[in-house]
Amino acid sequence: MEKVAILGGGSWATALAKILSENKARVHWWMRNKKDVQHLNQYKHNPRYLSQVSFDLGYVEPSAEIQSVVAAADWVILAVPAAFVQQALTDLREDAFAGKVVVSAVKGMIPKQNILITEYMERQYQVPNSHQLVIAGPCHAEEVALEKQSYLTIGSHDIPTAERFCGLLRNRYVKANPLDDLDGIEYCAVMKNVIALACGIARGLNYGDNFQAVLVSNAMFEIERFLDAMMPIHRDLSGSAYLGDLLVTAYSQFSRNRTFGNMIGHGYTVKSAQIEMNMVAEGYYAVQSIFELNKQLKVSMPITNAVYHILYERISPAVEFEILKDKLK
Amino acid sequence: MEKVAILGGGSWATALAKILSENKARVHWWMRNKKDVQHLNQYKHNPRYLSQVSFDLGYVEPSAEIQSVVAAADWVILAVPAAFVQQALTDLREDAFAGKVVVSAVKGMIPKQNILITEYMERQYQVPNSHQLVIAGPCHAEEVALEKQSYLTIGSHDIPTAERFCGLLRNRYVKANPLDDLDGIEYCAVMKNVIALACGIARGLNYGDNFQAVLVSNAMFEIERFLDAMMPIHRDLSGSAYLGDLLVTAYSQFSRNRTFGNMIGHGYTVKSAQIEMNMVAEGYYAVQSIFELNKQLKVSMPITNAVYHILYERISPAVEFEILKDKLK
Repeated sequence: MEKVAILGGGSWATALAKILSENKARVHWWMRNKKDVQHLNQYKHNPRYLSQVSFDLGYVEPSAEIQSVVAAADWVILAVPAAFVQQALTDLREDAFAGKVVVSAVKGMIPKQNILITEYMERQYQVPNSHQLVIAGPCHAEEVALEKQSYLTIGSHDIPTAERFCGLLRNRYVKANPLDDLDGIEYCAVMKNVIALACGIARGLNYGDNFQAVLVSNAMFEIERFLDAMMPIHRDLSGSAYLGDLLVTAYSQFSRNRTFGNMIGHGYTVKSAQIEMNMVAEGYYAVQSIFELNKQLKVSMPITNAVYHILYERISPAVEFEILKDKLK
Repeated sequence: MEKVAILGGGSWATALAKILSENKARVHWWMRNKKDVQHLNQYKHNPRYLSQVSFDLGYVEPSAEIQSVVAAADWVILAVPAAFVQQALTDLREDAFAGKVVVSAVKGMIPKQNILITEYMERQYQVPNSHQLVIAGPCHAEEVALEKQSYLTIGSHDIPTAERFCGLLRNRYVKANPLDDLDGIEYCAVMKNVIALACGIARGLNYGDNFQAVLVSNAMFEIERFLDAMMPIHRDLSGSAYLGDLLVTAYSQFSRNRTFGNMIGHGYTVKSAQIEMNMVAEGYYAVQSIFELNKQLKVSMPITNAVYHILYERISPAVEFEILKDKLK
């Protein structure tokens, strides 16, 4: 029996717990909130996210003790927002991940340090590259809960390990494929949230579908330029892990980043949009990291720059998009 | 004063008449229906499509006489459904287009002959390659009527001519750029309707957003394989004229092809879907042409094949998509 730890109690963590436990992996599930753990043990569902999903407690063991959860598993899935990764792992010893495979389901970067989650795990916990995986969509957790046909891509430097993990995920409604581009997939997952935010701002400013299609097309070139400057290997950016993941986020009315952007486009301040939404839009932090990284790379990133100017330099969204629209084609 | 003929009375023709006449080109506008011509002359709007758009009759001259309309213009825009191109032009002499630039705004192929509109115009009317242009989106006519920011790409073998035509289109809410890939853009515009049809079928079968994102990602590879086999030049398929045009069609709830597919997915027959919609879904004809052409090329086209099997060989959509989903990744 494969032993998997899931760290985090959000919707994506819950969807992964469903998939893995249905495949009869032993799921050790850490959530910060003890009441949620109690609720799960008593009522067999997560009280906060995808509550319609019922868990077989023969396979799922919820816990608020992160050390024991990590210690019990061979695979450790990180599924907390990027901004909280450091804080979530703070009680773990430096060797807590020794010998384990760490799987990042996080779509973001460590704020201020501007490093990928996999880089952070390597620096802080000495998890080698060969023992790291990333999970990429396109995949709304809500559709996994509904058992709609979904496809996952597992990014890795070590395809046999990725293939083993794919085996834990595959089922009637989930297909999973390994791909040898760990960093590219991870950066793309970060950038797609920035683009979704831009799509939301455009919608808030009353731009239409024609403009959004052009925005997404131009975003693909922007992502390509950034990735080529960062890690110039050949990649097919039309693939599901890149374009597909961007599409499901940019066109989803349920995307937090898109919703956050929409509010900004409508004139909400960042502060009031965050209070109103009562959650973190990953793209808010992501755009700062990408913008900072690009100070070295200096590639042309008009969309990222526009979102950064609006969120961090308080430039009017209408003015910034007037400038942006002349740069697109 | 530039003299432009527009052949066709549909929504795209109406949007182009708006753009061109606002830019003070002289628009000679042919529509088959004499009552529509009368209505336009009397009430200054097209009674059937985009009726909110009011025309300045100082610049727009509606007519049901195709010979005089074509004769009066230097630029002739074809904007009728592909299946009706031959019939619409039947009263014109072989030399009717001599010396004129022909601009195809048609998104389809000549049925049975399986040739592009530009090829047909060359064979039938000796319009040379250098005098042909194609207009590509992403562009809903409805959003042009609302003056939402839109982008057009003008495909051509002759960039100076394309650039001159771009000049006739550019305004406050339309940006236009030339691109040296006439055939590629034209084929892509045909294939996108097949993909939109597939997206509609998927929706009708109750597949979700995760699946659609993967379908569109895989479609990009399918289009790339076909174009590379047909005309192997380097092209950036993420561009607005390719990916952008596909997105605006595949994600639009107003796309005829998507709606038609949705009905097929829900179990309507082709016949009943056509009667119910009371219009032609271009993708219905397009898929047959692309399927026939691919008998020579023999590239892998699982999405096109699935749509063809469903529409022309009466294979159950549910069965065909069960097979298709295993071919995607």
